[in-house]
Amino acid sequence: MNAPLHSSEFNAIQTAEQLAEQFAQTAAERDKKGGNPKFERDLIRQSGLLALSIPEQYGGQGANWDTIFQTIRAIARVDSSVAHVYGFHHLLIATVQLFAQPEQYKKWFEDTAKNNLFWGNTLNPLDRRTTAQQISENEFIFHGDKSFCSGSIDSDILLCSGYDSASKLLIGVIPTQRDGVSFLGDWNNMGQRQTDSGTSHFEQVKIYKDELLLNPGPLSTPYSGLRPLIAQLIFVNLFLGVAEGAFTVAKETVRQQKAWSSSLVDQAVNDPYTQKHFAEFYVQLESVRLLTQKAIETIQWAWNIGENLTAEQRGKVSIAIATAKIAATNSSLFITQNIFQVMGARATTAKLNLDRFWRNVRTQTLHDPIDYKYQEVGEWILTEQVPKPSFYS
Amino acid sequence: MNAPLHSSEFNAIQTAEQLAEQFAQTAAERDKKGGNPKFERDLIRQSGLLALSIPEQYGGQGANWDTIFQTIRAIARVDSSVAHVYGFHHLLIATVQLFAQPEQYKKWFEDTAKNNLFWGNTLNPLDRRTTAQQISENEFIFHGDKSFCSGSIDSDILLCSGYDSASKLLIGVIPTQRDGVSFLGDWNNMGQRQTDSGTSHFEQVKIYKDELLLNPGPLSTPYSGLRPLIAQLIFVNLFLGVAEGAFTVAKETVRQQKAWSSSLVDQAVNDPYTQKHFAEFYVQLESVRLLTQKAIETIQWAWNIGENLTAEQRGKVSIAIATAKIAATNSSLFITQNIFQVMGARATTAKLNLDRFWRNVRTQTLHDPIDYKYQEVGEWILTEQVPKPSFYS
Amino acid sequence: MNAPLHSSEFNAIQTAEQLAEQFAQTAAERDKKGGNPKFERDLIRQSGLLALSIPEQYGGQGANWDTIFQTIRAIARVDSSVAHVYGFHHLLIATVQLFAQPEQYKKWFEDTAKNNLFWGNTLNPLDRRTTAQQISENEFIFHGDKSFCSGSIDSDILLCSGYDSASKLLIGVIPTQRDGVSFLGDWNNMGQRQTDSGTSHFEQVKIYKDELLLNPGPLSTPYSGLRPLIAQLIFVNLFLGVAEGAFTVAKETVRQQKAWSSSLVDQAVNDPYTQKHFAEFYVQLESVRLLTQKAIETIQWAWNIGENLTAEQRGKVSIAIATAKIAATNSSLFITQNIFQVMGARATTAKLNLDRFWRNVRTQTLHDPIDYKYQEVGEWILTEQVPKPSFYS
Amino acid sequence: MNAPLHSSEFNAIQTAEQLAEQFAQTAAERDKKGGNPKFERDLIRQSGLLALSIPEQYGGQGANWDTIFQTIRAIARVDSSVAHVYGFHHLLIATVQLFAQPEQYKKWFEDTAKNNLFWGNTLNPLDRRTTAQQISENEFIFHGDKSFCSGSIDSDILLCSGYDSASKLLIGVIPTQRDGVSFLGDWNNMGQRQTDSGTSHFEQVKIYKDELLLNPGPLSTPYSGLRPLIAQLIFVNLFLGVAEGAFTVAKETVRQQKAWSSSLVDQAVNDPYTQKHFAEFYVQLESVRLLTQKAIETIQWAWNIGENLTAEQRGKVSIAIATAKIAATNSSLFITQNIFQVMGARATTAKLNLDRFWRNVRTQTLHDPIDYKYQEVGEWILTEQVPKPSFYS
Repeated sequence: MNAPLHSSEFNAIQTAEQLAEQFAQTAAERDKKGGNPKFERDLIRQSGLLALSIPEQYGGQGANWDTIFQTIRAIARVDSSVAHVYGFHHLLIATVQLFAQPEQYKKWFEDTAKNNLFWGNTLNPLDRRTTAQQISENEFIFHGDKSFCSGSIDSDILLCSGYDSASKLLIGVIPTQRDGVSFLGDWNNMGQRQTDSGTSHFEQVKIYKDELLLNPGPLSTPYSGLRPLIAQLIFVNLFLGVAEGAFTVAKETVRQQKAWSSSLVDQAVNDPYTQKHFAEFYVQLESVRLLTQKAIETIQWAWNIGENLTAEQRGKVSIAIATAKIAATNSSLFITQNIFQVMGARATTAKLNLDRFWRNVRTQTLHDPIDYKYQEVGEWILTEQVPKPSFYS
Repeated sequence: MNAPLHSSEFNAIQTAEQLAEQFAQTAAERDKKGGNPKFERDLIRQSGLLALSIPEQYGGQGANWDTIFQTIRAIARVDSSVAHVYGFHHLLIATVQLFAQPEQYKKWFEDTAKNNLFWGNTLNPLDRRTTAQQISENEFIFHGDKSFCSGSIDSDILLCSGYDSASKLLIGVIPTQRDGVSFLGDWNNMGQRQTDSGTSHFEQVKIYKDELLLNPGPLSTPYSGLRPLIAQLIFVNLFLGVAEGAFTVAKETVRQQKAWSSSLVDQAVNDPYTQKHFAEFYVQLESVRLLTQKAIETIQWAWNIGENLTAEQRGKVSIAIATAKIAATNSSLFITQNIFQVMGARATTAKLNLDRFWRNVRTQTLHDPIDYKYQEVGEWILTEQVPKPSFYS
Repeated sequence: MNAPLHSSEFNAIQTAEQLAEQFAQTAAERDKKGGNPKFERDLIRQSGLLALSIPEQYGGQGANWDTIFQTIRAIARVDSSVAHVYGFHHLLIATVQLFAQPEQYKKWFEDTAKNNLFWGNTLNPLDRRTTAQQISENEFIFHGDKSFCSGSIDSDILLCSGYDSASKLLIGVIPTQRDGVSFLGDWNNMGQRQTDSGTSHFEQVKIYKDELLLNPGPLSTPYSGLRPLIAQLIFVNLFLGVAEGAFTVAKETVRQQKAWSSSLVDQAVNDPYTQKHFAEFYVQLESVRLLTQKAIETIQWAWNIGENLTAEQRGKVSIAIATAKIAATNSSLFITQNIFQVMGARATTAKLNLDRFWRNVRTQTLHDPIDYKYQEVGEWILTEQVPKPSFYS
Repeated sequence: MNAPLHSSEFNAIQTAEQLAEQFAQTAAERDKKGGNPKFERDLIRQSGLLALSIPEQYGGQGANWDTIFQTIRAIARVDSSVAHVYGFHHLLIATVQLFAQPEQYKKWFEDTAKNNLFWGNTLNPLDRRTTAQQISENEFIFHGDKSFCSGSIDSDILLCSGYDSASKLLIGVIPTQRDGVSFLGDWNNMGQRQTDSGTSHFEQVKIYKDELLLNPGPLSTPYSGLRPLIAQLIFVNLFLGVAEGAFTVAKETVRQQKAWSSSLVDQAVNDPYTQKHFAEFYVQLESVRLLTQKAIETIQWAWNIGENLTAEQRGKVSIAIATAKIAATNSSLFITQNIFQVMGARATTAKLNLDRFWRNVRTQTLHDPIDYKYQEVGEWILTEQVPKPSFYS
């Protein structure tokens, strides 16, 4: 394994693009197989990108959010499953920074940066089947199932959660190898097929108090409330990346084609309808790129403010991200559906597997209903109330 | 095998609906496997529906187009692959009536009605690789490949085509078992996966003159020019059927669901956004149903006119079908994409395989570009010129 | 004044089309002026069309709803203000049939048919400012203002309403000349400018008991509940008529134009984008025409059932009309907005006044919010509950 | 008249916003009247904003494009007619800088800055009726009509054009008072009603050689080719401003309203459909704001490059502006049409004159067909050819 590089020596975006080039070779094939992309995950480990979001004092590159999101998007252009679990790794790093204190996470971060550890997610707060029981001053037992655990399989460190008897959500950080942790490997969905977003099982798993994120704890302050917003912004970047990837494939395909027999021109690139379709795609892509960029700048601004972030300021971030998410959702669905209209019947061959773009965004855009993102934005416009912090807003 | 029933004893639509109920049990699974739906094709054979479009004097039910299209649509609601090849069977029966004379097809029709023969398609006029060479007064040799041969595998009778040295398209009707005919079984596309729309190969296949459809021949008169319009209207009915099937699944799914946590109501069926989405689907479905019905009535009207049909009258049919096709294309894509927005993330499980609705219409709607259907309709409005007859218009 | 003609001698649709031709000459000009179209209203009186919906036994033509709506639509193509008040005349005739008994309305109908009386509307049930007080066994006093009184000015007979002290809505039929009735002439809105939909004032107006519609009274049975559905269907026909009128103007304009300088063709009628726009308009128009036709057939079916109409049957009519209204609203806005995109800048001259098409449908489509029409349809799909009868559903 | 202020003492945007506040008081009323907004034009003169784009060395504020466009947009929010002619003033100042040399325009600029001269447009290159004839070494005669001369009436300086016998377009700068110049005052269109975009007449008007912009002349270099792009970007800012203005009015209106009777809530601001509509407006507005901002930055970048600007660089500006224009066109039409759906029927009163927002953008978006903006963008994506410079691209 490579030692992590300092930010000054490391071009993260270029690294991500090189990985993406490799991933692209097998993405269509791997999508069909589903399962765990172990080989690709190891390439990410070796690339040093797992330390990208870790502050320099702990051996990471201390990249800003713009760089982090750009690396996610670069990968999403060719493989939104791998981009998803890679993005979630950084989300989990951020989660610890938002829900806990440096004294606690220093060791985890140094370890992660040094050994290129991959973090996995078993947090799903909507699934209340995992219970947390305190059995001594310093020991807790987590027990039960958790669904939608993206990136859990082949992870090195896990963020996990359970509800105690008072219905309080406890979140812990443990080595994935901890006794009692297992994964059912039951993720088999129409899209995002290599995210391992299946069920994990905690069989009487012991978790120590100093592994729990209690200070300030989940969503306890406006600042810690940035966590779900980072998750949402990862989705936005996934959608945008997929749409950009689909656009590129369509462009390259059409450049090789003849126009339809009754067109006024010979080559598809000169066909008026084809040209207009591509312009429609492009205008949407540009809009989403700019909205996403603005959302990234807004979250960086809030991140920099830190613990003094007000509820109002957090609300501003929430709205910027919701706005980008609405546009990215609509546009990624529009583009991944309509690239076929410009490419024609031959683009439907399973060999190319071009429907995976649509299947991936159609699946991931359902994480939480977009109607209620509209609702939040509209309510804010009309009543000046910012969205109530939750794991979805 | 059952003997074919007379129209008076036979409820075709009910029969199709009963078949559909059976097909529905395995449609999701079969979509994944692709390949030839032999079991389902045999059920169709046994049902008597293959004689539906055959005139009563030849032992068929002599059904009108409305009944035929309703049976296609009933099957398409649950399985658009099987509906496609079943619809094409009737298209091929019609092709013979439009391109040839009763003296010639009498025997074929009687045989089909008596023995429930399934007709298959190897006609694709855009693929010029199959050549036709006359080797004696009564004998021709067809040789070469043909792509997009929906329903060819497991067929009993084939409609095939080849170009002679003068670039004239010759269309023949032969037993599928004829020496030299083979199928590559290479259809593996993202949708319509059980249509066997792959390549067929003709290895020096002998075809007799009385097997060729020469009087009046393909698209030689406005009346014979109805053939591609029937094909287009089959597609319209497939799109509508798929959309109706997706709508039904979505409705049944949502009826079991709770509303999203921030909804004003508890049950999904009472959620204002969910209600509006369903109304949007319904308004589109109703529009397409009525446009399709009108198109069916128009083609029946033209069919009844027969050989005296004028170019202008055929144009009217072409426009009615193009209009229905535009609406059916847009609506089936809209509905099959957006059912997910009302059903939510859990509907993406591969077990349900609900993306097949979208994959099927996304694939089949690319048969020929919808932009040029708009173009034809617009040109007719502005210049009063009806679409030029071709295998696509 | 002409004597009313019997249905056998009278071609209502042709008559309406001839009126429309006359109205078209001045429609653009009259839209700017607003106010009361006295001259056109008198032409309608003279045409005999006011007796169209009156049963033959009272001297009318006893036309079915299809004919009535076709006459409304014919006029709406060129003048949706006049079509509105003309349509409302027939709505008021129907109201009396639905809310009262023949013994009561016989005289009014004979009088209307014989003297071509024009009925006007001062009913608005949402405006509770007009009170109704019983002052003796047979006498009531209506007093107060009423807004949105389309067609009140220059009417001969008025349908009026007031709330009694128990908040019960009383509806009466009186000569417009009745002492105390006056009109403020304050209708000056952006569309439907010649509908006189302003305020009426009732200054201690005496109304006799036998002028009140008490048996069965307003919305008291499913059958009497057809009244608001007829109103909604008049709106649908107005929207469709306006869209058809706008489409025709656009088509005729474009036929005279050169294509844009960078087009691949010379004439606008051959421009691919222009052709596609017209096809989009046409597909929408055809959809709305068919949905409207189906809604008309459904209401005729319910009308024929009469007092035995069940709530479920009425619900079916309500859904058919809501469906048509949603499509007609969207399409009429789409078409009246986008005709400009095909006609270009010169079509914006005030002389042509072509924005009136958009202003008219934009105004009239706001009668009640289309979102809640979607809501009703969606609720019915998901819960099988038909819309609750009201003056809007 | 005020002396022009130096940039350091002058807050241009605030000044524009204060003017906008004044204009807003009468905008609805003035829209109905049409004609020349003399009073408002004089307020602009007095504000000092006419010198905003004039370089500091000539006594102007030398503002960058971002500031200039922000002032245009501020005015457009309440009055897009006045914003149009105000924007065109700055376009004409820029035209002279792009088509001529400082020696020539120094005097004009100093005069403009010192005396707050308002420039007017009689340039329309599509209208070839005005001829230019050289009658001596230094004298030309311009003769004939010109249409679409926005801002000509009440101007102090005119940019005018004529075609010489070799079909070369000559552009001149003259005092509006020059003998022979007159205006027909014939602008009466459905939108942009106070732009005076009517016909001007040149009756044997003498123009001196040093008033002609010959070095480098119109569109002769990529840099001079920025001129039509600035015009297009003014339109983009008008569309955005109008959409923002309409959005604000709608928001304020809805805040005062009750929800519809069948809503789940009491107040309109809490209605789910109303909230979603506003979010849709907002997402579009944000997109257009960011695309516009990017286009402004791109043109500033090209402007700063100056005469060395390459064709490829100019192409990049053209695409950025075309992209913003497509989005701004669609969104401004969408928003100005759909604000009525949230505000309801009472918003249609002529007193409020809220249809002017739609009428203004519907008119101005037709300057050149948006379909061909799509075409240019699509062609560039597919073929990498930048749009060919013209007065529209």
